[in-house]
Amino acid sequence: MGKYLPTEPYRGTRDFLPEEMSVRQQVFQRLYEVIEVFGYQRYDGPVLELTEIYEAKSSREIVEQQLYTLTDRGGRRLALRPEMTPSVARIIAGNLGRLTFPVRWYSHPNCFRYERPQRGRVREHWQINVDLFGSSSSAVEVEFIELIHAMMAGLGATEDMYVLRMSDRVLLDAIFTEILEVEDEQRRQVAGLLDRWEKYPEDKLRADAEEIGLSESRFARLREVVQAGEEILPELSEQARAGSKLIEVMNSRARDRIKVDPLIVRGFDYYTSTVFEVFDASPQNRRSLFGGGRYDNLVGLYSAQAVPGFGFGMGDVTLMDFLSTHGLLPEPANKVDAVVIPTAEALFEPARTAAAQLRAAGVRTTTPLESAKLGKEIGRADKAGARAVVIIGEQDHAEGMATVRDLVSGEQERVALPDVANAVRKLL
Amino acid sequence: MGKYLPTEPYRGTRDFLPEEMSVRQQVFQRLYEVIEVFGYQRYDGPVLELTEIYEAKSSREIVEQQLYTLTDRGGRRLALRPEMTPSVARIIAGNLGRLTFPVRWYSHPNCFRYERPQRGRVREHWQINVDLFGSSSSAVEVEFIELIHAMMAGLGATEDMYVLRMSDRVLLDAIFTEILEVEDEQRRQVAGLLDRWEKYPEDKLRADAEEIGLSESRFARLREVVQAGEEILPELSEQARAGSKLIEVMNSRARDRIKVDPLIVRGFDYYTSTVFEVFDASPQNRRSLFGGGRYDNLVGLYSAQAVPGFGFGMGDVTLMDFLSTHGLLPEPANKVDAVVIPTAEALFEPARTAAAQLRAAGVRTTTPLESAKLGKEIGRADKAGARAVVIIGEQDHAEGMATVRDLVSGEQERVALPDVANAVRKLL
Repeated sequence: MGKYLPTEPYRGTRDFLPEEMSVRQQVFQRLYEVIEVFGYQRYDGPVLELTEIYEAKSSREIVEQQLYTLTDRGGRRLALRPEMTPSVARIIAGNLGRLTFPVRWYSHPNCFRYERPQRGRVREHWQINVDLFGSSSSAVEVEFIELIHAMMAGLGATEDMYVLRMSDRVLLDAIFTEILEVEDEQRRQVAGLLDRWEKYPEDKLRADAEEIGLSESRFARLREVVQAGEEILPELSEQARAGSKLIEVMNSRARDRIKVDPLIVRGFDYYTSTVFEVFDASPQNRRSLFGGGRYDNLVGLYSAQAVPGFGFGMGDVTLMDFLSTHGLLPEPANKVDAVVIPTAEALFEPARTAAAQLRAAGVRTTTPLESAKLGKEIGRADKAGARAVVIIGEQDHAEGMATVRDLVSGEQERVALPDVANAVRKLL
Repeated sequence: MGKYLPTEPYRGTRDFLPEEMSVRQQVFQRLYEVIEVFGYQRYDGPVLELTEIYEAKSSREIVEQQLYTLTDRGGRRLALRPEMTPSVARIIAGNLGRLTFPVRWYSHPNCFRYERPQRGRVREHWQINVDLFGSSSSAVEVEFIELIHAMMAGLGATEDMYVLRMSDRVLLDAIFTEILEVEDEQRRQVAGLLDRWEKYPEDKLRADAEEIGLSESRFARLREVVQAGEEILPELSEQARAGSKLIEVMNSRARDRIKVDPLIVRGFDYYTSTVFEVFDASPQNRRSLFGGGRYDNLVGLYSAQAVPGFGFGMGDVTLMDFLSTHGLLPEPANKVDAVVIPTAEALFEPARTAAAQLRAAGVRTTTPLESAKLGKEIGRADKAGARAVVIIGEQDHAEGMATVRDLVSGEQERVALPDVANAVRKLL
């Protein structure tokens, strides 16, 4: 440790100064509004959870490599939540008697993963989670397809900027069984290979395939299946197709708003049927922005009552990158509306009284804390984004008046003290 | 581990179901609005910080007993933040070049303390933090006195419900030196004794005094000082009084809005001058609700540039208890405005279209996911707090119409599909 403590935030975490925070808040406020207009209610849960709730069903990568863990003095093994889905399943299971299904909930937790920091990956991020519990109808999938497009539209994105790809584990299983004839014990590895398909060059994929024991002809067949995309679906048995929510979605109008892609995998073990990912459509950034799916067995880890679930998480880092790439980030909001400036030490109290009047009228107002030259104070007010300054001068004040100056037009008027708030409000 | 995973949140932490979350959000939304009208901007920082930033200046109790700590794979000793002040001082010090002082900031972080859970104490709480950096003028104290009263008023509290007690460590030091003649090495212990004064009975205080080596006559003098309250201040030397912000506040109009109480201590080591606490005034609950003070040396731990600071943190648990005691908790908000109900399976798509129209008009709307009897769906809509249902029936729909029913009056009207949103909005 040097002479001073370090000022950088812990590696992979972020400080948000007000300008950055304002952008983040505006973006998420738009999302809250869209989500709420779909009838979803906000809930919240703790950062610390028992480690075992992740060991049960999250991905191996998360549990073995990315979990921040600690043990409390009572010997409880705790983790900083890496995602919200196990928490929300726990909360649902613990409150079955209080809830009327279907339950539409959302949250905006901070989540923690011990990752090597790089573009799009941090160790603490803020993630919008939207979940629906209590229905196994494919109407849930349709509702989420509408919701996701509405959320993207709420952020200013048009449908050419992103692609909503949807798959179904029921169909993927049938592809494995009926078409690729993959052994049960190889499935996880082949699914992993599919997950990496677009990220790796062919020779790397071929080497990986060899390593997990796929023959050259199987690998070739796998490549054909990937290339076929949704064209593979008619080759599957009626039985497999009948059990698939995705096939039902394909028979609804929502079909036009997704790209059917049987090879979307997603890493979590708890998904049971449809899974989806939203990709950035811009060629230089074909990354997954967020994704989710159906998890009909997760609540069953906590309770005898099985409750089907569907949901997704949308992290702030990839989302902000997307908005930045497409020029959709909002401007930071201004800081104040008005500054009340006394021209002498003796006028600080009257300035505070005027400021209190402005604040009571909802005008964001500051007053200086130390005496300074009027010009300097006006410059500061302008820099802070104030629209108006209210100057409390000796002569004016003795006559019960103040001067209101519009910092945009430069015009000013002398108004009676009780009318100051109205005069400023007219400018905003 | 039993057959099922536990559904309770980790001991001392809380799940917030939507009704509880709605109350929490409404309370804090009111506070955000008041704080912003005083010109404060929101910032944010990470949950994980290097442990050393707390070791430097937080209270011993926090560091030795209450910190959740862990070590990452890079060997960094980390803590879950127990409070926000060290983080905000770090962020200020790291961004001196970007900032124009005075800086008015606020935040609403979750903070963590390993405490024995009891009334008013939890292990994760949400804390509003408001801080001002860059001025050593007592105008800062005056601004905070106004802000705190405005925040309490924003919550519906009147000034008879709470007391804002303010002290000054400069004066406390002078009381120790000039009146009580406490040795330097005893000060911390005597300050601790003062902090406990109102919580413990006299014989317990006397025993504590004896244990720290205070003679009976010194203890009697201490009791006199406590009883004197602000009457002790004129006995202090001019020099001590001249260095005190509290004496300056006592010469301003803000004097009338505080109770001067030289014996308010607060546990944090970083306070340098004024400290305050807001107490519940109700006799059955004379607890400290929140507090803060001036810390002019904290930024100096991170930087050669000293930046004076003043701020406070207000936790959700004690605040909610206070609001509950005084009948000031808001009602949970309703969940949805309207439910669009199709009377047959074939009408789900038209119902979704009508729902989309309502949502575009800002009406919080759901549609059923499964077919059910109309009466049952209406009952559900009513229970969810909807004001209206929109019934999409076969005959109606064939004629381009729908029925809008007001769930409060029971009245209904048949309207053309494009007018549904307007008809519902009129009811809200």
